[in-house]
Amino acid sequence: MANSYGQNFRVTIFGQSHSEAMGAVLDGLPAGVALDLDAVAQFMRRRAPGRGAWATARQEDDAPQIVSGLADGKTCGAPLTALIANRDQRSGDYADLRDLPRPAHADFTAAIKFHGANDIRGGGQFSGRLTAPLCFAGAVAMQILAARGVEIAAHIFSIADVADAPLSPLGDRRELLFGVAAKDFPTLDDDAGVKMQNEIAAAKADGDSVGGIVEGAAFGVPAGAGEPPFRGVENVLAQILWAIPAVRGVEFGAGFAATKMRGSRHNDEFYYAENGTARTRTNHHGGVLGGIASGMPLIVRAAFKPTPSIAREQNTISLSRRTNAKLVVKGRHDPCIVPRVVPVVEAAMAVGLLDLLSEGRE
Amino acid sequence: MANSYGQNFRVTIFGQSHSEAMGAVLDGLPAGVALDLDAVAQFMRRRAPGRGAWATARQEDDAPQIVSGLADGKTCGAPLTALIANRDQRSGDYADLRDLPRPAHADFTAAIKFHGANDIRGGGQFSGRLTAPLCFAGAVAMQILAARGVEIAAHIFSIADVADAPLSPLGDRRELLFGVAAKDFPTLDDDAGVKMQNEIAAAKADGDSVGGIVEGAAFGVPAGAGEPPFRGVENVLAQILWAIPAVRGVEFGAGFAATKMRGSRHNDEFYYAENGTARTRTNHHGGVLGGIASGMPLIVRAAFKPTPSIAREQNTISLSRRTNAKLVVKGRHDPCIVPRVVPVVEAAMAVGLLDLLSEGRE
Amino acid sequence: MANSYGQNFRVTIFGQSHSEAMGAVLDGLPAGVALDLDAVAQFMRRRAPGRGAWATARQEDDAPQIVSGLADGKTCGAPLTALIANRDQRSGDYADLRDLPRPAHADFTAAIKFHGANDIRGGGQFSGRLTAPLCFAGAVAMQILAARGVEIAAHIFSIADVADAPLSPLGDRRELLFGVAAKDFPTLDDDAGVKMQNEIAAAKADGDSVGGIVEGAAFGVPAGAGEPPFRGVENVLAQILWAIPAVRGVEFGAGFAATKMRGSRHNDEFYYAENGTARTRTNHHGGVLGGIASGMPLIVRAAFKPTPSIAREQNTISLSRRTNAKLVVKGRHDPCIVPRVVPVVEAAMAVGLLDLLSEGRE
Amino acid sequence: MANSYGQNFRVTIFGQSHSEAMGAVLDGLPAGVALDLDAVAQFMRRRAPGRGAWATARQEDDAPQIVSGLADGKTCGAPLTALIANRDQRSGDYADLRDLPRPAHADFTAAIKFHGANDIRGGGQFSGRLTAPLCFAGAVAMQILAARGVEIAAHIFSIADVADAPLSPLGDRRELLFGVAAKDFPTLDDDAGVKMQNEIAAAKADGDSVGGIVEGAAFGVPAGAGEPPFRGVENVLAQILWAIPAVRGVEFGAGFAATKMRGSRHNDEFYYAENGTARTRTNHHGGVLGGIASGMPLIVRAAFKPTPSIAREQNTISLSRRTNAKLVVKGRHDPCIVPRVVPVVEAAMAVGLLDLLSEGRE
Repeated sequence: MANSYGQNFRVTIFGQSHSEAMGAVLDGLPAGVALDLDAVAQFMRRRAPGRGAWATARQEDDAPQIVSGLADGKTCGAPLTALIANRDQRSGDYADLRDLPRPAHADFTAAIKFHGANDIRGGGQFSGRLTAPLCFAGAVAMQILAARGVEIAAHIFSIADVADAPLSPLGDRRELLFGVAAKDFPTLDDDAGVKMQNEIAAAKADGDSVGGIVEGAAFGVPAGAGEPPFRGVENVLAQILWAIPAVRGVEFGAGFAATKMRGSRHNDEFYYAENGTARTRTNHHGGVLGGIASGMPLIVRAAFKPTPSIAREQNTISLSRRTNAKLVVKGRHDPCIVPRVVPVVEAAMAVGLLDLLSEGRE
Repeated sequence: MANSYGQNFRVTIFGQSHSEAMGAVLDGLPAGVALDLDAVAQFMRRRAPGRGAWATARQEDDAPQIVSGLADGKTCGAPLTALIANRDQRSGDYADLRDLPRPAHADFTAAIKFHGANDIRGGGQFSGRLTAPLCFAGAVAMQILAARGVEIAAHIFSIADVADAPLSPLGDRRELLFGVAAKDFPTLDDDAGVKMQNEIAAAKADGDSVGGIVEGAAFGVPAGAGEPPFRGVENVLAQILWAIPAVRGVEFGAGFAATKMRGSRHNDEFYYAENGTARTRTNHHGGVLGGIASGMPLIVRAAFKPTPSIAREQNTISLSRRTNAKLVVKGRHDPCIVPRVVPVVEAAMAVGLLDLLSEGRE
Repeated sequence: MANSYGQNFRVTIFGQSHSEAMGAVLDGLPAGVALDLDAVAQFMRRRAPGRGAWATARQEDDAPQIVSGLADGKTCGAPLTALIANRDQRSGDYADLRDLPRPAHADFTAAIKFHGANDIRGGGQFSGRLTAPLCFAGAVAMQILAARGVEIAAHIFSIADVADAPLSPLGDRRELLFGVAAKDFPTLDDDAGVKMQNEIAAAKADGDSVGGIVEGAAFGVPAGAGEPPFRGVENVLAQILWAIPAVRGVEFGAGFAATKMRGSRHNDEFYYAENGTARTRTNHHGGVLGGIASGMPLIVRAAFKPTPSIAREQNTISLSRRTNAKLVVKGRHDPCIVPRVVPVVEAAMAVGLLDLLSEGRE
Repeated sequence: MANSYGQNFRVTIFGQSHSEAMGAVLDGLPAGVALDLDAVAQFMRRRAPGRGAWATARQEDDAPQIVSGLADGKTCGAPLTALIANRDQRSGDYADLRDLPRPAHADFTAAIKFHGANDIRGGGQFSGRLTAPLCFAGAVAMQILAARGVEIAAHIFSIADVADAPLSPLGDRRELLFGVAAKDFPTLDDDAGVKMQNEIAAAKADGDSVGGIVEGAAFGVPAGAGEPPFRGVENVLAQILWAIPAVRGVEFGAGFAATKMRGSRHNDEFYYAENGTARTRTNHHGGVLGGIASGMPLIVRAAFKPTPSIAREQNTISLSRRTNAKLVVKGRHDPCIVPRVVPVVEAAMAVGLLDLLSEGRE
């Protein structure tokens, strides 16, 4: 396992779904910054379980407890460490899974990798709960970034075949996008949100699950950020976005759709805006050219697969008996993780961007 | 710029399109391995320019010259270093580009990042030519991997709207896939290949360019490889795939299409094969579960945008005069880089996988 | 601040002297290992304060609380995280030090680095207390190493001008060395120990402090370990030994004394021992040749300066008034840290060696 | 082998003593800097062989050839790569050494590590010749540092029992120190230099070798530099100094002598100088407090063992026959490497300090 991320802003995440605590150590924060811990807690509640019909019934408030890194309420140069307690554990629900790996879940590969010593309770270190410490890191990173003029927001781009209203890739309608943070269901278009919730409810009624796409945008990333070829904006963000469980694809700007465009259409023309800033008239490049930020809004999408843990009986294997077997998954699981994962995408973007923007090279 | 990749198998790439030489330093190879340098050179010729109507007319043989790392023809524990000369340089073609950044190209962001000191000749360090040293690294990595039972191949998945025949995600028809390396145009289905070439020719005739998708597969990756959450299989491969210029999206297994499947369909059922190996009946997961290899074929796709350098006049800005301007790109450019980039995708996969498989953790 | 160490076995340390807790996150441990937590706690008590006349009167038991990384009492592949509470805090003692930096202490440089935002209480992140989490990491590492046949021990080599009996660099008298762990005062020769304690008592009586040298040995390090030139045995151990506060010098084998020997004397002749192992007749090389372990005992010494915090009035500056000033240090301080630092040297060696021995390269 | 160093300024070194070429790749240099390549070549000549009676008779000019990283004579953001040819190779001299490892040399450990595949010619990758690319890196780093007000120089502190005149640790007599670069024998006191040369000549006449200590100083390192506990000034410099072959000890400021001082003497009192700068009246701390630069001159010493390759017959083993054996070393070897290693120490300091000073953290 590699549980540390970043070169300049370094985040180390620890914990399992049912360990005494999870947490994060944040190293490389500027000193002397007064953090708004209420805003951090509020951000984390957007990810916390127990909010809607689409989310697990597990009850956790996920309030982070700071145990180091502050002096007089300000960052002091020592690593900022937060603990998040695991309280509502029902470990008994998971007894079968050590033997019967869930299809599309890490049960099987973890058992191979750790020779059966992995913590199976609640998914162990592979649980979606581990996105809580990532959200803590992201919420802190966002405050540092905001002071530098960088703002991040995300919304549900689609669930199954239902699409949200399009985000303006040029950065217009920014208020609409930042408004989704306050919504119970984070879409730009509330009607689309209702349709998505129906889609989720239908899947749940069928004992099934459904996937979707989250789209994030970062505004104010300074032109010139990014260290290609191996630590350009895309390399860095893709690396951290893939730390979120269930991601199967990542694309920037026009993404896969760019492959169907001709250059004459895909090429974003440059022009000088009235304030003297160089801009592009379209934003197919999603704010990144050659791995380096262009100053235009950074647009990224991450694809999330349907939740593996479904209520239906499934075929699998018995690792102990080495035979084919049947599995019925117990425990509490989200029929769709996409709504809860929206702040996680924001957090991952924030952590990655703060790492990049803390790069020392002149 | 971050020009080194990897923790255990470490590749450092250097050079510009028109510098005296480009090259790669490979650190962490096992000692005592007799490399097949002819096979390396042959692999690199798949990427070299000047082969078809879709490729630049620049003539370079790209033969790597080994200057360190061998003793008696075997790796000796010292880093393996190869130089690749730049010979057919026509630097004069690029004079305008310092002032008039090409839309969708790194000219603009590089000028910002390096305060105008970047090497503009031939695209400098942002040139697709820098994939030649990556191919050297990949060709060497493939030989080490092959000795461990890991084999890698790629094909053109699509160009514009033309799709190749589907790859079997279960690893059948492997010979067909490995056969594309010998083809002039690397598709599974030669008829599809002809249509793709027509698509490219049409774009070229229009003074335009076109993009596409490359799909790669790795067979024999041992179950258990991968160090999630931050160095799982996807994090590592996405990071290095994004070192290839023009990549806009990366997906594994069912990828973005997974977002439209229900869990009951997307979940790949486990079963024991006759030889006692645990396998899945479908391979929507593309060989990776929870960031860890499952032992099933590893399937990845990378989306490439249309070549930015097109023959048509385009709108851009003049950096010196700070006004809007017109640009006509000179120089030799591929109307579609997808055919030449197929071995580059293989090389990137090989480098990333060798790094992962050299991980020391028991 | 850079609070993470290691590439393969990765230790992240957090906390300040008076933060709610300190701790360590250990990533890269093998899975399935049953740790002896009693042995860990016992090891940490060797470093804990309050044991002898030479140690601070601060009372802390420093018992580590494991919050993640175990399942059924065994390592599970997730990072092992321990918290160590800070209880007996008398923060008021330190009020002056923000303004009046102690000579030879980090007060001044930390104030510059963190623009005055550093945690001054108890020395903040620069406190010797932060060696407690390092000892936790080392105690765990030692158990992994012991299972691989590597054993580590240290003793006081000298305090001021008083030297301990010499350690056999060939690895004889190993029991004598391992016996010091059980002693109140960790010397090979108890008479030398009494003289050292007298030296410390005399310094204390003068309101002064005194330094010394700790010598560590590792037995069983396999020949071939070490990745020179930048991660050879000495690079790696020097890097982590310098994470212990107050270290001013590090040497291996004959060390600085080697500069006064001729080659004919310093060169350790090879021979084959009766069991067929290649050994050297002397061990001036301290178990490392060319950055790589030779299989002979690894011998390292670290020099510790006298404790900066002395009871006498000293000249310093007032940072707020920007004038010269007088300082009388309050608080509880060791007149000599050398006795307590012996297990810390062992711990640092263990962490560094486990990182090296977890290197993936064949 | 780990052949890359640094996080922000990254140096990768490649080559063997008798490979076609050695070289260095420098990543992370600021762009737009006009390098003085004549000054680089002049610096490297201080290390080059063939200058005095104490040096090997091998003739190499070691002129670096730049193959990438410059555009119009200025750094362009791409890695700066230099090749150094190996010309005067007499590989036949080394045939015996694969079987008969030299005492105190890496022959034995390299054979173990690389299973006999290491390049034995001229010491392969363990040759002192590999300090040439390090000197290239250091010479370039020095130019970047000089523009930021940081200057570095070193001298021979001692050879055997002969000591040079003391360096002023407060930074006085700086001209005297910087003057040694132009001397054939780099001491402050030429009379001491004559005595040292006599000492070397006497050892050579005896078919023997002798060691010594090099002392380096850096002036102008800004207070606040250094990222303790794991990347403080000492950690970083010790790590890179130990990349120089034959180093057995490293100390800062008073170093090992500090262990014999009481705190009241060792503590350097702070005061405000007339220009308002905080300084210390003595410099036992060598410019580093708590791992962070204090702004006072940085003082470091490295101990070098006597050259292992001596002309006398020595006892060793035959690896092929697994018997004890006799060895007479042929080839050309320095009876004392200390004079030639003075610029190498300067180079290592420069590389380490540029890495530290390029740290991105505010």
